[in-house]
Amino acid sequence: MGMTITEKILAAHADMSSVEPGQLISARVDIALANDITLPLALEPFREAGGTKVFDPAKVVVVLDHFNPAKDIASAQMLSKAREFARELGLIHFYDVGVMGIEHVLLPEQGLVVPGDLVVGADSHTCTYGALAAFSTGVGSTDFAAAMLTGKCWFKVPETMRFVLTGKPGPWVCGKDVILHIIGEIGVDGALYKSMEFSGEGVAELSMSDRFTISNMAIEAGAKNGIFPFDRATKDFADVHGSRPYVVQESDPDAVYEQTKTIDLGSLEPVVALPFLPSNVRPVSEVKGMKVDQVVIGSCTNGRIEDLRIAASILKGRKVAKGIRLIVIPATPQIMLQAISEGLVETILQAGGAVSTPTCGPCLGGYMGILAQGERAVSTTNRNFVGRMGHVESEVVLASPAVAAATAVQGSLGHPGDL
Amino acid sequence: MGMTITEKILAAHADMSSVEPGQLISARVDIALANDITLPLALEPFREAGGTKVFDPAKVVVVLDHFNPAKDIASAQMLSKAREFARELGLIHFYDVGVMGIEHVLLPEQGLVVPGDLVVGADSHTCTYGALAAFSTGVGSTDFAAAMLTGKCWFKVPETMRFVLTGKPGPWVCGKDVILHIIGEIGVDGALYKSMEFSGEGVAELSMSDRFTISNMAIEAGAKNGIFPFDRATKDFADVHGSRPYVVQESDPDAVYEQTKTIDLGSLEPVVALPFLPSNVRPVSEVKGMKVDQVVIGSCTNGRIEDLRIAASILKGRKVAKGIRLIVIPATPQIMLQAISEGLVETILQAGGAVSTPTCGPCLGGYMGILAQGERAVSTTNRNFVGRMGHVESEVVLASPAVAAATAVQGSLGHPGDL
Repeated sequence: MGMTITEKILAAHADMSSVEPGQLISARVDIALANDITLPLALEPFREAGGTKVFDPAKVVVVLDHFNPAKDIASAQMLSKAREFARELGLIHFYDVGVMGIEHVLLPEQGLVVPGDLVVGADSHTCTYGALAAFSTGVGSTDFAAAMLTGKCWFKVPETMRFVLTGKPGPWVCGKDVILHIIGEIGVDGALYKSMEFSGEGVAELSMSDRFTISNMAIEAGAKNGIFPFDRATKDFADVHGSRPYVVQESDPDAVYEQTKTIDLGSLEPVVALPFLPSNVRPVSEVKGMKVDQVVIGSCTNGRIEDLRIAASILKGRKVAKGIRLIVIPATPQIMLQAISEGLVETILQAGGAVSTPTCGPCLGGYMGILAQGERAVSTTNRNFVGRMGHVESEVVLASPAVAAATAVQGSLGHPGDL
Repeated sequence: MGMTITEKILAAHADMSSVEPGQLISARVDIALANDITLPLALEPFREAGGTKVFDPAKVVVVLDHFNPAKDIASAQMLSKAREFARELGLIHFYDVGVMGIEHVLLPEQGLVVPGDLVVGADSHTCTYGALAAFSTGVGSTDFAAAMLTGKCWFKVPETMRFVLTGKPGPWVCGKDVILHIIGEIGVDGALYKSMEFSGEGVAELSMSDRFTISNMAIEAGAKNGIFPFDRATKDFADVHGSRPYVVQESDPDAVYEQTKTIDLGSLEPVVALPFLPSNVRPVSEVKGMKVDQVVIGSCTNGRIEDLRIAASILKGRKVAKGIRLIVIPATPQIMLQAISEGLVETILQAGGAVSTPTCGPCLGGYMGILAQGERAVSTTNRNFVGRMGHVESEVVLASPAVAAATAVQGSLGHPGDL
């Protein structure tokens, strides 16, 4: 019986010839990741298990990206604890202020994740690396502690839902629209503990950046992972960024899927997820004109150079509307440098947007744009739960960078096609 | 009897032919300034006095620069209140995210303060505009409320201390070293409620940027204001930036000074103020090598383009030392644009520094680089009181941008001349 790409990666890392859905396995991890919030939480279970050193100092990656540079004394204390722990462990890939970027954009950029990898991260959006034809998933700090100590983690092999993509996205349809559409269709528990596998001829129409956005939000449908097949685009990305040799895995033609859905990319239009669930999806054309106070462009979902290019193409020669605050956060220092060299930062500043140093910041209600009571943000981030970006009576509307930028210049929820 | 420049500006704004030290006067203000912390505090006294509109919507300036983009829910609420109040008052010069910069750098850049002005601001570093041969001073939110309602404020005419500057600053001696040297000499109450007047041939050796830094920190010696004479450099600055006609005032040759001190700029060397007072001044040469965790370059004291040029000249082709976090904060969007066009932001990022959107941020323990217990920062800001930048057991060492940048690359308190 054939296996899916997810099953093959899990089997290879468990040194087994095959695995099947529901099976419990212990598998080797290629990378174990934590951040400034989750690393300190892993300290106690690590010590309790007798931990004094990590299984491989090159395979435990720490990125202090959530509240850094420190937003307050509590976060400064947490960062200090994380720094001390990372130093003590002798980690080779440790990212602090200046080299620090948003972890799920930084790791692929730095080549720390390559196709075929098995990655666990103490952060729910670790599923992002599925775009690289790798298996990656979020774990709790205790599982992270175990992985960092032993180099292994246990998994229940997930069932796989197949999403066959056909057609070609039309104007202003981004990866964000694709994944929001899917979540809107299947719901926030539509893929609970399942693998989401994207396939079909439509994949070739999606850039790596689109794929990262799509895999990133697999968790918002409850999925264990969200994985793309290895193709020319994956190879090109890995050739430029990858730091290690890699093994290409692919789904067998006779792999078994729990279900298969077909998505015609050509039928999609720009969408948003209204408060308070990522599944509350509506076409922009139906809800445009909503009052908006703040626009955020950034995060592990949409803080890449491609996202900034889209935003800047809309902002170019235009001004942010009165009453709107535009905050743009390039996800890594390299992206900020690239955006400067392409004139994108200049365009954003001239339009009246603020450009922040890389940070997760507002996405999780951290800092750099927290919302007051009654305020609404259009944001390229990934969650719009109650109070996610600030006050319990504030709202977040999830959107693509195109919709976000259009909103910034139009002054209310806007469609980029109307400009 | 002759008058000092401060007395002349006060007299002119009180419609009096002369004033003398100790006299209580009511004077017209050209600009009344508040920020996101102090504007909301002025709401109640403004209302209690029956206030419904401001004396002149073009003369009340509000800059939301302290905790903006919002660092947390409390600051978001405060910012929201400030925005609502400013909107209701119909203010013409209102600066929020995107156009917002650090107030005391932004107002001169935007030409809102010109020579001869009388400016009050609900922020202690309002004394900065003395560099423009204007009288400017910090007031409480209640006095600000009165000024915004009536266009007037009461003052006790201060005695004037004269600082005669001679000579020419040597290599790496910045405006910051001049004012720290003076504060070190006279103490943090050395000019309590007095006017500090800078004069002498040495003034011509100081750039406008140096003068802004010096006037900015007059309050750290307890002064009411810190004022420079109008000269060629002032005229050039006013010609480029000024938005209104202006009246040049100058001290009479027979003006009466409470005391006169002479400072030989040529004898100065780079200095720092060690914790926990700006008067705890030591030559860098005597204290270099101190352990440092964080370097901050920015603030109303040293966040101008000239400061970034100095810092970048040191960072160029070098790397921030391991274990040091460098945070650079251009004071306004225009400065950030200029720094990008000159390649300074690129240099800072390539060196491993983080570049933040404009904010007062870490200077007052706001955000964007708060210190943990036991940490020490070298900072171009203006105050190093206990807990100023974070934890009560953290420390701030005040320095020029040259010393700060040298520290960032050397990895401990460093002298730029050693590079």
